[in-house]
Amino acid sequence: MAKAPVLTPQAEDFPRWYQDVIAKAELADNGPVRGTMVIRPTGYALWERMQREVDDRIKAAGAQNAYFPLFIPESYLRKEAEHVEGFSPELAVVTHAGGKQLEEPVVVRPTSETIINASFSKWVQSYRDLPLRVNAWANVVRWEMRPRVFLRTTEFLWQEGHTCHATQDDARAYARQILHEVYQDFMVNVLAMPVVVGRKTAKERFAGAINTLTCEGMMRDGKALQMGTSHELGQNFAKAFDVQYLSTEGQREYVWQTSWGVSTRMVGGLIMGHGDDNGLRLPPRLAPTQVVVMVVKDGPGVGESAAKLAAELGGAGVRVELDDRTDTPFGRRAVDAELKGVPVRIEVGPRDLAEGNVTVVRRIPGTKTPTPLGGTLDAVNTALVEDQQALYDEALARREEKTADVTSVEDAIAAAATGWARIPWATLVDGGEARLAQDAITVRCLLRPDGSVPESDEEPGVVAVVGRSY
Amino acid sequence: MAKAPVLTPQAEDFPRWYQDVIAKAELADNGPVRGTMVIRPTGYALWERMQREVDDRIKAAGAQNAYFPLFIPESYLRKEAEHVEGFSPELAVVTHAGGKQLEEPVVVRPTSETIINASFSKWVQSYRDLPLRVNAWANVVRWEMRPRVFLRTTEFLWQEGHTCHATQDDARAYARQILHEVYQDFMVNVLAMPVVVGRKTAKERFAGAINTLTCEGMMRDGKALQMGTSHELGQNFAKAFDVQYLSTEGQREYVWQTSWGVSTRMVGGLIMGHGDDNGLRLPPRLAPTQVVVMVVKDGPGVGESAAKLAAELGGAGVRVELDDRTDTPFGRRAVDAELKGVPVRIEVGPRDLAEGNVTVVRRIPGTKTPTPLGGTLDAVNTALVEDQQALYDEALARREEKTADVTSVEDAIAAAATGWARIPWATLVDGGEARLAQDAITVRCLLRPDGSVPESDEEPGVVAVVGRSY
Ligand SMILES: [Zn+2]
Ligand SMILES: [Zn+2]
Repeated sequence: MAKAPVLTPQAEDFPRWYQDVIAKAELADNGPVRGTMVIRPTGYALWERMQREVDDRIKAAGAQNAYFPLFIPESYLRKEAEHVEGFSPELAVVTHAGGKQLEEPVVVRPTSETIINASFSKWVQSYRDLPLRVNAWANVVRWEMRPRVFLRTTEFLWQEGHTCHATQDDARAYARQILHEVYQDFMVNVLAMPVVVGRKTAKERFAGAINTLTCEGMMRDGKALQMGTSHELGQNFAKAFDVQYLSTEGQREYVWQTSWGVSTRMVGGLIMGHGDDNGLRLPPRLAPTQVVVMVVKDGPGVGESAAKLAAELGGAGVRVELDDRTDTPFGRRAVDAELKGVPVRIEVGPRDLAEGNVTVVRRIPGTKTPTPLGGTLDAVNTALVEDQQALYDEALARREEKTADVTSVEDAIAAAATGWARIPWATLVDGGEARLAQDAITVRCLLRPDGSVPESDEEPGVVAVVGRSY
Repeated sequence: MAKAPVLTPQAEDFPRWYQDVIAKAELADNGPVRGTMVIRPTGYALWERMQREVDDRIKAAGAQNAYFPLFIPESYLRKEAEHVEGFSPELAVVTHAGGKQLEEPVVVRPTSETIINASFSKWVQSYRDLPLRVNAWANVVRWEMRPRVFLRTTEFLWQEGHTCHATQDDARAYARQILHEVYQDFMVNVLAMPVVVGRKTAKERFAGAINTLTCEGMMRDGKALQMGTSHELGQNFAKAFDVQYLSTEGQREYVWQTSWGVSTRMVGGLIMGHGDDNGLRLPPRLAPTQVVVMVVKDGPGVGESAAKLAAELGGAGVRVELDDRTDTPFGRRAVDAELKGVPVRIEVGPRDLAEGNVTVVRRIPGTKTPTPLGGTLDAVNTALVEDQQALYDEALARREEKTADVTSVEDAIAAAATGWARIPWATLVDGGEARLAQDAITVRCLLRPDGSVPESDEEPGVVAVVGRSY
C-alpha cells in the first residue's frame, strides 16, 4: 500500500509533526478564544478511556467524586499568599453577570484548593471525619500566553483530588499512594509510558505545596512532559480556611492535606511519546478501538465474513470496529487507521478470503501477516498483549538511550540538547539549577540512586533528572 | 427503631422538606457565589449513575462525545437573533484575563449552539459527512435570580447533543429518537418516573428552535419539572454560521439540526418525584448503593457473617456496601440509610443470627422481613426488581390522581392548585395560555389524545397538559 506523505517527518520538525498529527487524525482544533481547544470525537475518545482508567484507580484508593463551583470569589484566592502569587497572572475574571456589574468579581477556577477548603471547613469536625478524600473531574482555566493544543491550553480538562488527614504522615503516605497506585500504575500499564517518578525541587513546586511529587514522561524528541503531580499541602490551606478537627484527645487541630491531578495534557504526552511518522500509535490497553476489520473491496461473501469476524471479536471482549465503506478508496482508509493509531487492522479481501485467509496488520511492530480466518481471534489477542509490551519496551529503551549520566552542569546542558541528564543534585544546589534555567533546562525531578522517591531534597546521594520540557 | 424527626414533613412545607433532604442526606451545599452549588459525594454519585446510563444510550443512538470551549466570543451569540435575545439576561462575561482587559469580552457558555456551529461549518463539507452527531458533557452558566439547588443553579452540569442532517425529516426523526430512546427510556426504566412526553408550545420553545420536545415529570407536590428537552433547530444556526454541505446532486445546501440536553436538574426531579418524609427513595436500577449490609451490634461471628454476605452480594453483581461502624449508634446509621434512600438494608445482629436469620428492610414498601441467611441473595434480587416497579407504579398512580380532565381555563386553574390539568389545546389558543401565565401556570406540553407526540400544534384534537412548575 502506497502511503501519502501526510505528516511532516518527526526528524524534520517535531513541533510541526505534532500539529500535523492533531489535524490529520482529527484529534482537536483551536477554539475561537485564544488558547482554547475543541476536542474532536477521536481525541475525546482517548480522554474518555483515560478518565475511566484513572477514575477506577482513584475510587480503589478510597476517594469519592464530587463537584465544586467553577466560580471562586476573588477574595478566596488571596487567602493563601503563595497560591495567589502563583496563579494571579493566569486568571480569567468575570466582572459582569446577569446584566449587571458584580459587586465582587469572580475568578474562573485555575485550580480549586481555595473553594474546596471552604467546604472542608464545614465538613470536617472530628477525627471521625478523617481521612476525607474527594476528587472532582472538571474544566479549569489558566490564561496561556504560548498555548499549544493539549499541552498548554487556556482551558483544559482534568481531575483534581483533595484530601484531609489527621497527621502529616498520613497525608504524605496518601500523596505517595496516589502517585504510585493511580498515576504511575496507569501511565506504565495503560499508557505504556516509562515515566520517571520523583520529587520536585522547591523551585518547581506547586504554589502552596510543601512537597510536589511528579511523573515525568520523555517525548520522542527527548523533551520531558510533566504528566501528573501529587502534592503535600501541609497545613497551608487548612490554616488559611480554618479546617480543623477535634482530635481523640479533644484538641482542635489543623488537618494535613494533599492535592493531585492529571489532565488532557496526557493526550499530548501519548501522542508525542509513541507517535511516529505515520501517525499515532495507541497502546492496546488504552485504544478506544483496538481492532478495525476493514473490507478491502467488495466480493462474494467478503462483507459477511468481515461482519462476522468483527462480531466474533466484539463478543470476545475486543473493542472492535467494522469498516465496510468500500465507496472510499481502501488506501485512504488504511492511512487513516494508521494515522489514528489503531493497534490492529484486519484486511478482509476477496483474494485472501478465497484461500480462507485475512491479513493481520499490526501498527506497532508494522508487520503484515496472512492469517487463517479461524485463527484471527488468537492472533489479535497475541498482538494486543505483545504490542502493549513492545511499545513500553521501545519507549524505555529510547529513554535510557537519550539519558546521559553526567557530573557537571556543562555536560548536563550538552545532554539536554537531545535528551535528559542524570546529575548529582549536590552539583546543582549552589546556582546550578539557575544556570540550567538560563538554557531553558529544568530539574524534572529528584530521585534516589536506586530510582525510588526521596523523602527530602537533602538525602545524601540524591540524583537530579534534568532536561528541556513542554 | 425510633426515628428522629429530621425532616420537615412534605405536607407541612414541601420546599423546606426539599432543602432539608438535600442538607441531611448530604447531597449538596450552596456555593459561595450566588446560585452556585457544591455537589457532595452522595449527590454526585447519583449524577454519575445518571451520566453512565444516559451516555450508554446516547452512544447507542450513534452520537460521539466531544468537548467544546467554555468561552464563547460575545459576537458569536449575536449571530442568531432569537438566541441572543433569549440568553442575554443570563450571561456571565469575562472582561479581564491574563492580567489585561480583553479586546473582545468572552461569554461563559450558557449553551453551545453557537460555538459548536462554528466547528460544524469547518467539519461539514459533503453529504458523506452527514449525519454528524456529537454530544458534550459540560458545565454551563446561566445567571439565576431565584436559584434553587439542582433545579435552577447559576452553574449546572449537563450533556448537550448537537447534530446536522441532510434533510428536515432526518433531523425531526433524530430529535424524536433521542427523546424516546435516550431520555424517556432512561427516565421511565431507570429513574422510575412516568414522564409525560410531548411538544412545547411556541411560547415555551428553546430560543432558536423551531420545535422543542420535552419530558415532564410530576413532583410529589403536584408541580411539573421539565426533565429533558430535544429540539429541532431547523436551519437557523446553519444559516447564522454557514453550515453547508455539497449534496449528491452537487448543490450547496444548509444542514438541518437538532440539539438536546439533560442536566443535574434531574437529581432534583429524582428527589422530589420519589422522596418521602423519611428522605430519598432511590429506584434500585439507579441507586449507587443498592444494598447496605449493616452490623447492628458486635457479637460472635456477626462482623464475619455481614462481610461474607456483602461479598456474596457484590459477587452476584449487586452494588453493595458494608456498614460495620458499630461505634456509631445503629439507629443513627439506619436513619442515615433511609435518608439517603438506599433501596435495601440488611440488618445483621447477634440475636437474629443465632437463629440463622438476618432482617431485610425494604425502603420503598417499608417492609421488614426476617430472612434465612442462605435466602438473602434471592430476597435482595426480588426486592430490587419489585421495588423498581413499585416506585414507578406509585408515581404513575399519583400522577393520574393529580391530573384532572377539564374543558375550561377556570377549571384548569383550579386543578393546577394541586396538580395538572388536561385541556383541549384549542381552548387555550386565543389568550388562554396568557391567562394561565397570570397565575404562573404554563402549558407543559401538547399531546395527542392517545398520549403520543403530535407533529404540529395544529393537529386536531391536541391536548395541553398544564400546571405549575419548578
Ligand atoms: Zn498557596
Ligand atoms: Zn436562536
